Amino acid sequence: MNVATSWLARSVSQLSPRLRGVVATAAKPERDAALTREQRRMLKTLQAIVDPQVSEVEGGRRARTVAAGYATATPEQRRDMWLLMSEQFAPDAKKVAAARDQYDTAIGTPEEGQAEIRLRKALVSPRTRLLQRFSAFPEGMRFLLDLRAELLPQLKGEKRLLALDAELENLFSTWFDVGFLELRRMSWDSPASLIEKLIKYEAVHDIRSWADLKNRLDSDRRCYGFFHPSLPDEPLIFVEVALLGEMPGSIAPLLDETAAASDLTKATTAIFYSISNTQTGLRGVSFGDSLIKRVVETLRAEFSKLKTFVTLSPIPGFRTWLGRHAGAMLERMERRARTELQRSLGGEALTAELFLAAADNARELDAASPLGHLLMQCAAHYLGQELQDGKPVDPVARFHLGNGARVERLNWAGDGSPKAWKQSYGMMVNYLYDLKRLDKHRVQLGQGKIPVSGEIAKLAF
Amino acid sequence: MNVATSWLARSVSQLSPRLRGVVATAAKPERDAALTREQRRMLKTLQAIVDPQVSEVEGGRRARTVAAGYATATPEQRRDMWLLMSEQFAPDAKKVAAARDQYDTAIGTPEEGQAEIRLRKALVSPRTRLLQRFSAFPEGMRFLLDLRAELLPQLKGEKRLLALDAELENLFSTWFDVGFLELRRMSWDSPASLIEKLIKYEAVHDIRSWADLKNRLDSDRRCYGFFHPSLPDEPLIFVEVALLGEMPGSIAPLLDETAAASDLTKATTAIFYSISNTQTGLRGVSFGDSLIKRVVETLRAEFSKLKTFVTLSPIPGFRTWLGRHAGAMLERMERRARTELQRSLGGEALTAELFLAAADNARELDAASPLGHLLMQCAAHYLGQELQDGKPVDPVARFHLGNGARVERLNWAGDGSPKAWKQSYGMMVNYLYDLKRLDKHRVQLGQGKIPVSGEIAKLAF
Amino acid sequence: MNVATSWLARSVSQLSPRLRGVVATAAKPERDAALTREQRRMLKTLQAIVDPQVSEVEGGRRARTVAAGYATATPEQRRDMWLLMSEQFAPDAKKVAAARDQYDTAIGTPEEGQAEIRLRKALVSPRTRLLQRFSAFPEGMRFLLDLRAELLPQLKGEKRLLALDAELENLFSTWFDVGFLELRRMSWDSPASLIEKLIKYEAVHDIRSWADLKNRLDSDRRCYGFFHPSLPDEPLIFVEVALLGEMPGSIAPLLDETAAASDLTKATTAIFYSISNTQTGLRGVSFGDSLIKRVVETLRAEFSKLKTFVTLSPIPGFRTWLGRHAGAMLERMERRARTELQRSLGGEALTAELFLAAADNARELDAASPLGHLLMQCAAHYLGQELQDGKPVDPVARFHLGNGARVERLNWAGDGSPKAWKQSYGMMVNYLYDLKRLDKHRVQLGQGKIPVSGEIAKLAF
Amino acid sequence: MNVATSWLARSVSQLSPRLRGVVATAAKPERDAALTREQRRMLKTLQAIVDPQVSEVEGGRRARTVAAGYATATPEQRRDMWLLMSEQFAPDAKKVAAARDQYDTAIGTPEEGQAEIRLRKALVSPRTRLLQRFSAFPEGMRFLLDLRAELLPQLKGEKRLLALDAELENLFSTWFDVGFLELRRMSWDSPASLIEKLIKYEAVHDIRSWADLKNRLDSDRRCYGFFHPSLPDEPLIFVEVALLGEMPGSIAPLLDETAAASDLTKATTAIFYSISNTQTGLRGVSFGDSLIKRVVETLRAEFSKLKTFVTLSPIPGFRTWLGRHAGAMLERMERRARTELQRSLGGEALTAELFLAAADNARELDAASPLGHLLMQCAAHYLGQELQDGKPVDPVARFHLGNGARVERLNWAGDGSPKAWKQSYGMMVNYLYDLKRLDKHRVQLGQGKIPVSGEIAKLAF
Repeated sequence: MNVATSWLARSVSQLSPRLRGVVATAAKPERDAALTREQRRMLKTLQAIVDPQVSEVEGGRRARTVAAGYATATPEQRRDMWLLMSEQFAPDAKKVAAARDQYDTAIGTPEEGQAEIRLRKALVSPRTRLLQRFSAFPEGMRFLLDLRAELLPQLKGEKRLLALDAELENLFSTWFDVGFLELRRMSWDSPASLIEKLIKYEAVHDIRSWADLKNRLDSDRRCYGFFHPSLPDEPLIFVEVALLGEMPGSIAPLLDETAAASDLTKATTAIFYSISNTQTGLRGVSFGDSLIKRVVETLRAEFSKLKTFVTLSPIPGFRTWLGRHAGAMLERMERRARTELQRSLGGEALTAELFLAAADNARELDAASPLGHLLMQCAAHYLGQELQDGKPVDPVARFHLGNGARVERLNWAGDGSPKAWKQSYGMMVNYLYDLKRLDKHRVQLGQGKIPVSGEIAKLAF
Repeated sequence: MNVATSWLARSVSQLSPRLRGVVATAAKPERDAALTREQRRMLKTLQAIVDPQVSEVEGGRRARTVAAGYATATPEQRRDMWLLMSEQFAPDAKKVAAARDQYDTAIGTPEEGQAEIRLRKALVSPRTRLLQRFSAFPEGMRFLLDLRAELLPQLKGEKRLLALDAELENLFSTWFDVGFLELRRMSWDSPASLIEKLIKYEAVHDIRSWADLKNRLDSDRRCYGFFHPSLPDEPLIFVEVALLGEMPGSIAPLLDETAAASDLTKATTAIFYSISNTQTGLRGVSFGDSLIKRVVETLRAEFSKLKTFVTLSPIPGFRTWLGRHAGAMLERMERRARTELQRSLGGEALTAELFLAAADNARELDAASPLGHLLMQCAAHYLGQELQDGKPVDPVARFHLGNGARVERLNWAGDGSPKAWKQSYGMMVNYLYDLKRLDKHRVQLGQGKIPVSGEIAKLAF
Repeated sequence: MNVATSWLARSVSQLSPRLRGVVATAAKPERDAALTREQRRMLKTLQAIVDPQVSEVEGGRRARTVAAGYATATPEQRRDMWLLMSEQFAPDAKKVAAARDQYDTAIGTPEEGQAEIRLRKALVSPRTRLLQRFSAFPEGMRFLLDLRAELLPQLKGEKRLLALDAELENLFSTWFDVGFLELRRMSWDSPASLIEKLIKYEAVHDIRSWADLKNRLDSDRRCYGFFHPSLPDEPLIFVEVALLGEMPGSIAPLLDETAAASDLTKATTAIFYSISNTQTGLRGVSFGDSLIKRVVETLRAEFSKLKTFVTLSPIPGFRTWLGRHAGAMLERMERRARTELQRSLGGEALTAELFLAAADNARELDAASPLGHLLMQCAAHYLGQELQDGKPVDPVARFHLGNGARVERLNWAGDGSPKAWKQSYGMMVNYLYDLKRLDKHRVQLGQGKIPVSGEIAKLAF
Repeated sequence: MNVATSWLARSVSQLSPRLRGVVATAAKPERDAALTREQRRMLKTLQAIVDPQVSEVEGGRRARTVAAGYATATPEQRRDMWLLMSEQFAPDAKKVAAARDQYDTAIGTPEEGQAEIRLRKALVSPRTRLLQRFSAFPEGMRFLLDLRAELLPQLKGEKRLLALDAELENLFSTWFDVGFLELRRMSWDSPASLIEKLIKYEAVHDIRSWADLKNRLDSDRRCYGFFHPSLPDEPLIFVEVALLGEMPGSIAPLLDETAAASDLTKATTAIFYSISNTQTGLRGVSFGDSLIKRVVETLRAEFSKLKTFVTLSPIPGFRTWLGRHAGAMLERMERRARTELQRSLGGEALTAELFLAAADNARELDAASPLGHLLMQCAAHYLGQELQDGKPVDPVARFHLGNGARVERLNWAGDGSPKAWKQSYGMMVNYLYDLKRLDKHRVQLGQGKIPVSGEIAKLAF
């Protein structure tokens, strides 16, 4: 046994003699043929966790030992363990077949319901139980989340891991049911160790310093996160909110640390200017919709004058999209606008390449300039017309429109950062959450029509 | 529409016009044929909760409205709703069949794992999603637990409800995973509203008064419960512990409110003298094993001198069992003992009836009397030898032995209460939790051999 | 040394050898002449606490040892200790004289202020420092409060203890400054150990059971107490409040455990029906005024419809007072009323004795009966006219009127208990707290005029 | 009335008409003669706070109004208010005289104790009551502390303010009695708003960044502060502690953010490397001694292997002191050492000036160099021999030695910062807290002998 597998040897050697016996005999030979000696050892260690003869408590203790060994394992050992978890803990095919036959027979009879449940139970794989044992000790949830975050980038290259990934997503979606999440406000009075995580996870507008952070937690701001009892010290998702007297068109004033706090008693508008997910391992389990709705309720209870709930959002996919659709956009353009643009670009024949090159080099241009106006029109089209598989193409639009918001206003020069220039020529967009129309908007979107304000409708081609 | 169904009407009428439309058309006609008009209305209300076009948040809001209506519904309406939930929300049989076929094909191939998960997803019934929506609002968990507690007694008479019951048990076993439970000590400093619940739920030795309760939470006692984040104000299960210098043979001193607190610095023995489950609705989801082990860890961390962890338990099934097996017991008896007993009973021929009648009328007898000794022997046999389906026949024995404890000592006149006389001629038993042997004992029990102390082994026939 | 003084010997023997030397020499001989050997030992132990050569921390440690010994001391030993504390720790008379001379000289000059402070510092006796040392350890405050509670009944018989009592009162009034008290609501969710104290300390209407207590903490009730950081587990004073739609005339409905909770959304009137001080040791340090005002603020913030704040109070001194003033009351009576009363009593000559005897034997009489009406008039006179040293004679009236309340309404048969019959023929009174007039009423009372409602004014002679 | 005094006018105008009358008449004419019209208004406002006809609650409300006005007052107005508070609220001289006469008569009689207390009561000035009213509202304590912090620098120039200062110190020493302080650990899990204050108040080694701060709150560190119930959000004093395997000689490793956390299980030595008072306004009220002792107890309870408690301290006064005593030091030096030094300095005649100049220019020298060694000897003399009014001359030494510590070890090049070079040629000192000898050391110090280690004794001249 080489050094690299010593953690497994250690894990096994920590089992009592009797259990080592159990481990040695429990493995199913037919699946083990191709395994190396080290992999067989590893498999036995994992099987010992779900040994039906030991209690859940003991199973959890063993899972903990494995998790401790995993921390120092090599990438190859980890990958081996994933494959074992994914492939060696399938449900008993015979039992599944029997339960399935019963179900087939029962369909349409009063026994259907029971047969259905029995079939589902037969399908609850040892893999499920194996993963559940890790949730039995503090930090076990952290272990599983990190494991999946590490696993995700490898899925494309190794389909054999998909079963483990699907099992984890399935368990997470039950464990992280929105009903178990607690909405908590984070403020400058929260533990430093907690708000340090805001710096770490902020995904939209980087937090540059503790002073920047303090500004975002100032008296005229709110920051809320969803917390799970098993991960009490970090938000799964959080949103930063500014409270103002009007809908803002630019992010700069919101991030200005030196600006005075606004007067909360006059605030009519809540701006969700940053929403960040923190756990890669929770991909496929979504909280954003619930978070925003719970935050809206909470804000309305605190500030009775609030009437408008709106985002100030980036448009991350616009420029890339335009690169591919510039020609089509030019065709949609009115002749007069095209002529004007051509003239402003020096009079050459107006091609997609010329158009894009002009856009690339025009950081200083104005919303009212021919090129500026055209880019706005393209963005309005992009956000208000383009669907892919029935959903908005822009990922941020997909999220907010999926929640029932509508595209409210485009803001030229909304964000002066290089990132924003690269994504959307610096444009930002407001999505409006009109609480009385969320469901109406969702239905409308379901019918293939993106809800937009009159202003956007007019702007789009 | 009569008065009795008005809550449903109300629930439906609170939906917006558009949604009433959805409700009106979504029901699957083939299953609805036999439904009354009121049942069809009810079904539509339930279907609106899992309408795929509405968000989880909105679904939760609708579930809440239904829960509010349920509170004032008649028994018939409730039963109707259970049946609808049980029968009308089955998974889509065609999708299940398709997924099953894929799975069959994939077995043994690298796609097996994925196919397995896909089949399981196809089996996730709308019923599951329906019940999950109730977990999305505070008090929703309470609603589901109470619903199942109300449902359970009806299962025998109505098999059609079994699917709903199984679905609930399944969800509860995930939601109430031990990893999500918090062990909390309850003391006289806990909220009155919380410890009032100890009075309500105590199942073993009734709490007679607040003074009795205070005694059980005294400085030489400990009381621990498992709590779930969704039910923060009540223990799911709790255990009462006394800390003494020796293993006690009788419950009376433990319940004596006037006794002085014992000296904790000298305590060597922790006695688990009462364990109570509080939620009927959680039948099939067990916490007892974990609770005891977590409590043992907690106690050992606090009191380094503690060496012995033992219960003082009732023997609820003994007397009933003896009623059926008195003859067999007499046969096992040694001739000398039988002669002595016969003489002590007046010399008549020794029949099972005579034996039982003598036992029934001998409250004052002594452990050393021929009859007393024989009853002790019978009890030792009952606890240490009798198995049913491979498990101890006594329900309390089943629990503790299943956890890995062993039968340690029988205590004549352990409990002077009428209930104890009726159950076990007043005998009590200590089960010993020897932490190093719990797994060994479980294996031994699995092999059909009940672990007992030398004393019990000697006593048993 | 006899057994009785062994605790002192122990205390001294726990000091290190060096300190025993300090103790042995520090005592001032002139004051010690009359002391017994045991008293001298005790004195040395106390002096060691304020030994200027030891740190405050060490002084506190010594005080703690003395407090521990005190717990098992005999009444004689305790009394000896009080006398030593009272008499042996006076300020240094020479330093006082010097500081006083400086002060006399400084009066009217710019140095006056400093001289004043210096004189005050010279007067800070070693006794003050001695008592302060007891506040340095947890439970030390409890010790001092209990010591004073034990001391108070002895003051009449032993004037030598007055200095100790005054010193304690003085320290308590600083330590228990209202600014350091925290107003906390107590409810059924408060710790059982805390609300158990409500039972213990309730002074007005005894709490008969935990059910009675639960009723008083019900959803339509409020109970608030003042807490001090050094005694976090018990209220210094607490008030019980009912929230109703009108001013109540009788206590019975408020104490009825079976009555349904009233509708809080309609509550217009807060009734303070019981106010209890818990610490005898805090005599002379008053919180009642602040408590009521803080509670009124708190209630108004929670219930916007509350308009009326009123007590329902006993009249503890009325019957005793009437026993002494029955003759004068008869004289004040109108001829017609007197004649009517005489007739109703059987026509004998109307003497004070006859009047009082009739009142004593007339539990069943009616407010409208001649005797009933007359007693009401006497009570109105008692509460609305009678002053002693410029203050209302009734102790409860003295408290509420001193806070700025006014006498609002007399309630015949307000309290059916034997205690209330004995105190006031069962009558109760409402004092009204009209927040806008509290100061006006206080000024009016300061001018010798008791503020009363028109109804009371009309009723009084 | 000019603008500057408008806050007073506002304060007065907020009183009710009746009270304005009270205010107008209550002022004592004899003291008011020299006051301006504005000062008389201000005086009336202050007098209204202690008006005996209003309740404490109302008095507190008025104090609050004054505090609000003070926040926007000019420096002149503030100073006027201080003078009024200092001079116009003296006790009644006649009452004091009467009480004093009674006391004189009572000395030596059983009435002495009572007479003493009565005299003290007569000396409780209206000024005391005035300041107490500010403690009755939240933020009032903050107000008084800030007021005194602002007042202190002015005392030298204006003796008339001394009475106010002494009164405040007196009240603070009662209110901030150590018995009322809570020891709390501060960690990276404390609120950001709290630990931000560590940055603000750290007095010994500046906190350079949040990363520096995080290092000081790391797992191998502890930080404790004393908190008062009236100022729950800021520590009055705090100490930073490192836990190591040995006594450190240099501060740099302790402040190194990149160093790995040390192994706590092996820690034998607790190093108090920074102690900071935060409230200038509490001058004269000391907590340091108690803090260190409480922290030692707390650390010993948590880490059983800790044996040594030691500081790593600056020597702030050394270089300045040496500047004045260099000549005397040279005289004490042994001939051989002097010759060696002279040679190392180039052979010139050894004068104090030359010596000091050499020291000033020798940042790079070594502890073993002649000059380095001599400076160490001088520092050992400075710390171990020099007393002023019976106390160590160095302020930090005064604090630790006063607590019973001893001078343990001098560390050449203990602190490389410019500040440390300027104060002590970069030297640092360890003071040892040997818990069993604290009192012995205090006595020794009281007898004029500074406790030092053998090493220091040998080093000193």
